[in-house]
Amino acid sequence: MSPTFVSQIFNSIADTGRELLDLGTGKSRNHSIEGLCRDLLTQKGEASGMALAREAVEVWAGLTEEEQLNFLLFLDNEMSPDQVRIDKAVAAYQMDQSPQNYQYLSAAIEAPRQELMRRINFAPGGTAAIVGMRKNLVGYLNEYPQLKSVDNDLKHLLSSWFNRGFLSLERIDWRTPAVILEKLIEYEAVHEIDGWEDLRRRLDSDRRCFAFFHPALPDEPLIFVEVALVKGLADAVQPLLQQEAERGDPRKADTAIFYSISNCQDGLKGISFGNFLIKQVVAELSTELPNLKHFATLSPVPGFMKWLTSVKGKIGGIPFKEIGAVKSLLRENEWFNNASILDQVKEPLEKLCAHYLVNEKSRERPLDPVARFHLGNGARLEQLNWMGDKSANGLSQSAGLLVNYYYNSKDIERNHEAYANERKVVASSSIQSLAKAGKK
Amino acid sequence: MSPTFVSQIFNSIADTGRELLDLGTGKSRNHSIEGLCRDLLTQKGEASGMALAREAVEVWAGLTEEEQLNFLLFLDNEMSPDQVRIDKAVAAYQMDQSPQNYQYLSAAIEAPRQELMRRINFAPGGTAAIVGMRKNLVGYLNEYPQLKSVDNDLKHLLSSWFNRGFLSLERIDWRTPAVILEKLIEYEAVHEIDGWEDLRRRLDSDRRCFAFFHPALPDEPLIFVEVALVKGLADAVQPLLQQEAERGDPRKADTAIFYSISNCQDGLKGISFGNFLIKQVVAELSTELPNLKHFATLSPVPGFMKWLTSVKGKIGGIPFKEIGAVKSLLRENEWFNNASILDQVKEPLEKLCAHYLVNEKSRERPLDPVARFHLGNGARLEQLNWMGDKSANGLSQSAGLLVNYYYNSKDIERNHEAYANERKVVASSSIQSLAKAGKK
Amino acid sequence: MSPTFVSQIFNSIADTGRELLDLGTGKSRNHSIEGLCRDLLTQKGEASGMALAREAVEVWAGLTEEEQLNFLLFLDNEMSPDQVRIDKAVAAYQMDQSPQNYQYLSAAIEAPRQELMRRINFAPGGTAAIVGMRKNLVGYLNEYPQLKSVDNDLKHLLSSWFNRGFLSLERIDWRTPAVILEKLIEYEAVHEIDGWEDLRRRLDSDRRCFAFFHPALPDEPLIFVEVALVKGLADAVQPLLQQEAERGDPRKADTAIFYSISNCQDGLKGISFGNFLIKQVVAELSTELPNLKHFATLSPVPGFMKWLTSVKGKIGGIPFKEIGAVKSLLRENEWFNNASILDQVKEPLEKLCAHYLVNEKSRERPLDPVARFHLGNGARLEQLNWMGDKSANGLSQSAGLLVNYYYNSKDIERNHEAYANERKVVASSSIQSLAKAGKK
Amino acid sequence: MSPTFVSQIFNSIADTGRELLDLGTGKSRNHSIEGLCRDLLTQKGEASGMALAREAVEVWAGLTEEEQLNFLLFLDNEMSPDQVRIDKAVAAYQMDQSPQNYQYLSAAIEAPRQELMRRINFAPGGTAAIVGMRKNLVGYLNEYPQLKSVDNDLKHLLSSWFNRGFLSLERIDWRTPAVILEKLIEYEAVHEIDGWEDLRRRLDSDRRCFAFFHPALPDEPLIFVEVALVKGLADAVQPLLQQEAERGDPRKADTAIFYSISNCQDGLKGISFGNFLIKQVVAELSTELPNLKHFATLSPVPGFMKWLTSVKGKIGGIPFKEIGAVKSLLRENEWFNNASILDQVKEPLEKLCAHYLVNEKSRERPLDPVARFHLGNGARLEQLNWMGDKSANGLSQSAGLLVNYYYNSKDIERNHEAYANERKVVASSSIQSLAKAGKK
Repeated sequence: MSPTFVSQIFNSIADTGRELLDLGTGKSRNHSIEGLCRDLLTQKGEASGMALAREAVEVWAGLTEEEQLNFLLFLDNEMSPDQVRIDKAVAAYQMDQSPQNYQYLSAAIEAPRQELMRRINFAPGGTAAIVGMRKNLVGYLNEYPQLKSVDNDLKHLLSSWFNRGFLSLERIDWRTPAVILEKLIEYEAVHEIDGWEDLRRRLDSDRRCFAFFHPALPDEPLIFVEVALVKGLADAVQPLLQQEAERGDPRKADTAIFYSISNCQDGLKGISFGNFLIKQVVAELSTELPNLKHFATLSPVPGFMKWLTSVKGKIGGIPFKEIGAVKSLLRENEWFNNASILDQVKEPLEKLCAHYLVNEKSRERPLDPVARFHLGNGARLEQLNWMGDKSANGLSQSAGLLVNYYYNSKDIERNHEAYANERKVVASSSIQSLAKAGKK
Repeated sequence: MSPTFVSQIFNSIADTGRELLDLGTGKSRNHSIEGLCRDLLTQKGEASGMALAREAVEVWAGLTEEEQLNFLLFLDNEMSPDQVRIDKAVAAYQMDQSPQNYQYLSAAIEAPRQELMRRINFAPGGTAAIVGMRKNLVGYLNEYPQLKSVDNDLKHLLSSWFNRGFLSLERIDWRTPAVILEKLIEYEAVHEIDGWEDLRRRLDSDRRCFAFFHPALPDEPLIFVEVALVKGLADAVQPLLQQEAERGDPRKADTAIFYSISNCQDGLKGISFGNFLIKQVVAELSTELPNLKHFATLSPVPGFMKWLTSVKGKIGGIPFKEIGAVKSLLRENEWFNNASILDQVKEPLEKLCAHYLVNEKSRERPLDPVARFHLGNGARLEQLNWMGDKSANGLSQSAGLLVNYYYNSKDIERNHEAYANERKVVASSSIQSLAKAGKK
Repeated sequence: MSPTFVSQIFNSIADTGRELLDLGTGKSRNHSIEGLCRDLLTQKGEASGMALAREAVEVWAGLTEEEQLNFLLFLDNEMSPDQVRIDKAVAAYQMDQSPQNYQYLSAAIEAPRQELMRRINFAPGGTAAIVGMRKNLVGYLNEYPQLKSVDNDLKHLLSSWFNRGFLSLERIDWRTPAVILEKLIEYEAVHEIDGWEDLRRRLDSDRRCFAFFHPALPDEPLIFVEVALVKGLADAVQPLLQQEAERGDPRKADTAIFYSISNCQDGLKGISFGNFLIKQVVAELSTELPNLKHFATLSPVPGFMKWLTSVKGKIGGIPFKEIGAVKSLLRENEWFNNASILDQVKEPLEKLCAHYLVNEKSRERPLDPVARFHLGNGARLEQLNWMGDKSANGLSQSAGLLVNYYYNSKDIERNHEAYANERKVVASSSIQSLAKAGKK
Repeated sequence: MSPTFVSQIFNSIADTGRELLDLGTGKSRNHSIEGLCRDLLTQKGEASGMALAREAVEVWAGLTEEEQLNFLLFLDNEMSPDQVRIDKAVAAYQMDQSPQNYQYLSAAIEAPRQELMRRINFAPGGTAAIVGMRKNLVGYLNEYPQLKSVDNDLKHLLSSWFNRGFLSLERIDWRTPAVILEKLIEYEAVHEIDGWEDLRRRLDSDRRCFAFFHPALPDEPLIFVEVALVKGLADAVQPLLQQEAERGDPRKADTAIFYSISNCQDGLKGISFGNFLIKQVVAELSTELPNLKHFATLSPVPGFMKWLTSVKGKIGGIPFKEIGAVKSLLRENEWFNNASILDQVKEPLEKLCAHYLVNEKSRERPLDPVARFHLGNGARLEQLNWMGDKSANGLSQSAGLLVNYYYNSKDIERNHEAYANERKVVASSSIQSLAKAGKK
């Protein structure tokens, strides 16, 4: 029998089981989610925790948007720590810093919603529901800043549950269940996937795709990376994506290009998997294909044009006037198809971009978020690729420029330390030259 | 290919991967575990967290007993919350109970060892190592009471990670891998398993065995229950365990007898799975075998003889003298094979045992730990079985008596509430009569 | 790790293994397929059978169409039984019908290509290659009738290998690997699947799809059936296929409608799986959903219009003139959207179709191939559905009529025997009435 | 859910399915197996083949020994080809050797029991039942030589079904289900496994065990091989089997010693898997552990003592008298613990054994069955090991001698051809010298 069929059967078992387990609370199906949550935290929750949790998960799934918001506010209003209890605990602790008073303070300070979430998690689908709650919550943070504390608690809990040690790396290819493949189409954040045929090309024999999964969310990738196996550093993304591109022999490739990394779960915002993913995939690919000698990304520079627009003076050796000229050329219609314009802007843009990546910082870290991520992981800024991404997005954000960040197992730790301690951007000499040209 | 073979291959992959990932820290193999842990909590841990965690797990595995104790003490001495920081946070919070000060206080109060454990968990085998650390720790608590705070933190963390929602229920039978089956032999706590042939009888077609597993410990059952499928309430355990016992037809059984429940992981002490396990197994069995109408345990009364020995006056209607006579008969050699003695002690012992179970309490809850567990789950005290367990253990702890606790899905919640709110021991009328006889 | 990833790894193992195993014959890579096959049947094949078989499979895959045909002719020319040897064996057998002479005759008569195929099957992919050879062969039978003997041998062998006992029934749904799902799109023979969205609707919660698989062709369904779970006998197919159709609750359905059955492998032509498939799916669905009470097909009448066109006289009670009138109305443009025409042709067409199904036979069996199949399986001709299939195909072949064949476990054997022994078409009374009206 | 649990569920499904499918024949449960088999071959078998086959399989399982024999005789008496039909076909074919007459002859000559077996195989457990029938049959061949034809047919069919292409190689280790592990204990034919602890040592990290499985017999190994990973050619077997032997590091081993190969299924007698198994395992191990450079067996010489006993003259250069002296020394009690005897017999026995292996033949092939097998596979006779097997069996059959046969991928084909064409025993120079010494 196929796994598929098996899972089906277990669904029906689970349903029967549910009825059995629910018998005690069957009558209470019209409970509000708030009522269920209150029950879950009482002794009732000890005997019927599973049934109550199941019901809470189901009720949550059926709530209107407004009811969901109300529930989130309830988590703030009613499931926050008890002020009076904290005050007492703080007072006791100040009097005597005994282990018992410390324990008492610890207990008083933990919001009841944490235990509530742990109990909701008893139910099948509980983890997914909680991730869904936080996704929702994140969307309301601006409007309802008081939810920040609830968010802190959920993030803390999810961060503990989605610990790297509980994730499994899985390869995604054309043998992967459709229910997962369609998530890739939905979640791809860098280079949109245009349907099943497009997806298929990205999963072909000279491509690799890996994702992290959590056992409680078996059909939901948490983050995935798309890799092209090529010869030499790829310097443009469109050739990698074309349907008609010739299929290479993975056993003859020498380079793995990580051309797209997408986080999938808004509910896990701020819980970082990318660093682990890249390094693990480097290890997997090295094992599968010992012929691979180089591992590098092909990445956008998403903040470049925004920064350039805001520049209000000369950049190093490049006079403000010249920068202005470049900017006005970029406002020309179809400038990227105009050989003369390309000719004029290429050199200054490369210098400006190198400068932006190497020298422009905010709070001592690179201004560009993608640079911040890869440099923070210990990668090296390797190569700037002119007209590497001619998509509308690529042109408007990065003036079509793409960058390779290079991952060398031997240097990762040293690079990271230089970055972390000395705030140093580790870059190849060619990029350093360009950046200096922009700086001088 | 067999799953077995696959796992083998992944081991070798993981090894290769490890080397790759370790390249950065390869030189540091002679680090002490304390040094590794300090590193894990610095920025170094951000770039090389995986490699450091792996090394910490490996170094831990190789420590001597003394070094392990030293490490646990280090968790107390060096990885406790910073007193000064707490003091500041408490002071600030007392001045102004702003969300920010709350957050600051929360952060100050969490011991760094919690984050340390979350990072150690990055590594393959990390969860097992942490469970092992706590097993160790639990053994030292009496001698080193200062470790209580470390224990609290580990228990809190493990309790969150081993949430019911992350466990899977798995049936154990003769098709289960040997590596798991041998754990049953090792962990069985109630009725010892005497080798593979004995085990096999317990996994035969008229028996069931289920266990909870956690994804991070795939070869380690957390708790398991052994069930016999029979007709009518079983009233003695030896017939269930005999090799030569006739095999019944599970489709003709009407009763599932839970005759043994064993916790397997000392490192998860105090984190309770039994309640969930019993109810889930009731649901599974009801689905598989709709012919099953009754679900009950066949349980020891482990505290009975100890209590009886300590009794210092009359018990309800039974004069102390009579009790004394019973006790001295029980001191006779081979009393349980002496028809005359059996005849004399049966009635008073049954009354005393019923009394013990129903009326003897400590802090408002039943004195007997097994009674406490099942009654707390919402079961009913159903039947007392004379000479139900003639093993040496059964005789010395329970005077050979066994008890059936009856699980009825429809009554579980009501029973639990009566127990929790009114401290009521829900018992069948026959047991109530016996207990009254003992009481009056 | 995902199964996907695992399979990948085994591919690479297999490759390495191949190199190892191939070392002995590595030099011979330029062998012709005929040469390899000759070697396979000599003692060389005993030592290096695996390597030779692998090479033959690979060489076959790379042949041009012409070379493939040549190979098939080689199977006839060179791999047929040895005439002289048969003659001798026949002569010996005529002299003395000893067991030994029988054995000798048996051996002489078996074509060497049978043993050849068994040896080609040693290689991974061997079964697929042989199925591919027969697919090819079937296409050449008309032009090269001498290949009939080769076809007989291949069919005999494949029929033995694809025995029902070696097939597994697997449920297909949205959790099935994409590599299999795309085969459904490719192979659906009755109601074309228009891309992934269309497929998805057919695999939704109120639908079921099952296929037979052979262990040697894990990614290739052999035959699959699509089922709709509905209330009452479905009488039209388009509503079942619509994307926007409301999703029913499978636990409230009382009827399973088998609306499409497709054979997938041309190379297995004439080896019948449909009978087994339907009965097994009835059993599976009865187990999964005890609420299902009725199992019936919704089937085309593919030969009806062809037969009607050829009719050259009155049909039972319907004068030829009237038949002629109906036929000319059906030649009207868009007749099926013309209420007046529909009104005129409905009754006579239903009668004619019932007559066609019940009374028109060839060699004592129903003329219509679909009727032949289901009646042969023991189903009952249940209901005629006017305008059940308004697709171009449905209109041109069956005048839009669809039929329900009803599978009742209790009657299957009796129906089949009546069909097989008495050549009786088991039909509902309503269809019998219609057919009589057509016949009288 | 565990696979275990799944299989359980499918059992219950299958049971329900069976009832459904059986409804048509439910009444016929008291059919004799002969009656069922007759039905299976009629048109009844077409409609209810599955149900009839299930019943036949079940009835077979419940037969007494005598009834089983009767059934086997029935296969000969009633399920043999129709003599009259053969005669006609032979006559027709002699008149005209047309393809049609060939087809007719082919059909006439195939025994109906072949089709019968194919239909019995429809049922779950059918393959196992047929393998069981043949196991039975093989035991009766001596007493009932008329069953030889039935045996030929069963062997032919099973040989086709158990084609290498349908087998999967699986690694066996401590993670393998107990139901399979206990089969190893049962089937080990060379060096008995003395219970689970002994088995465990053979599956430890410096050992490997592989088996072939057929998809229709998932719990039954067909053949398995036990391998020790060591440094240098192992020259004695007891050290490999000892519990207390130090565990080696498989990544530091250079040699894989195949020290035991056991066929498991008597019903598959004469269908050879060993050649494929060894070569496939060599490939797997080379992939898993590239450090392995040598692959060799450590094999008994089971026919040596029997041959030596029967020797009736001088052997090459060794006078008969000397041989007689050796033989009488070997009749001494505990000769193998007597240093003086060992000293006297070592040299002559080695020479005689080398001579026996290299020169003694029957029908041009080595007399020793193990030598025949490995030399036929293309291995080289490498080394003779004095006192390599001190078990009772080893001493009585081989005078304690063991032999290494060396498998070198590069030479296998050449060796095999020399063996097959020139009847040459490929042996190392040291063995050749010994053999010459024995011959001269």
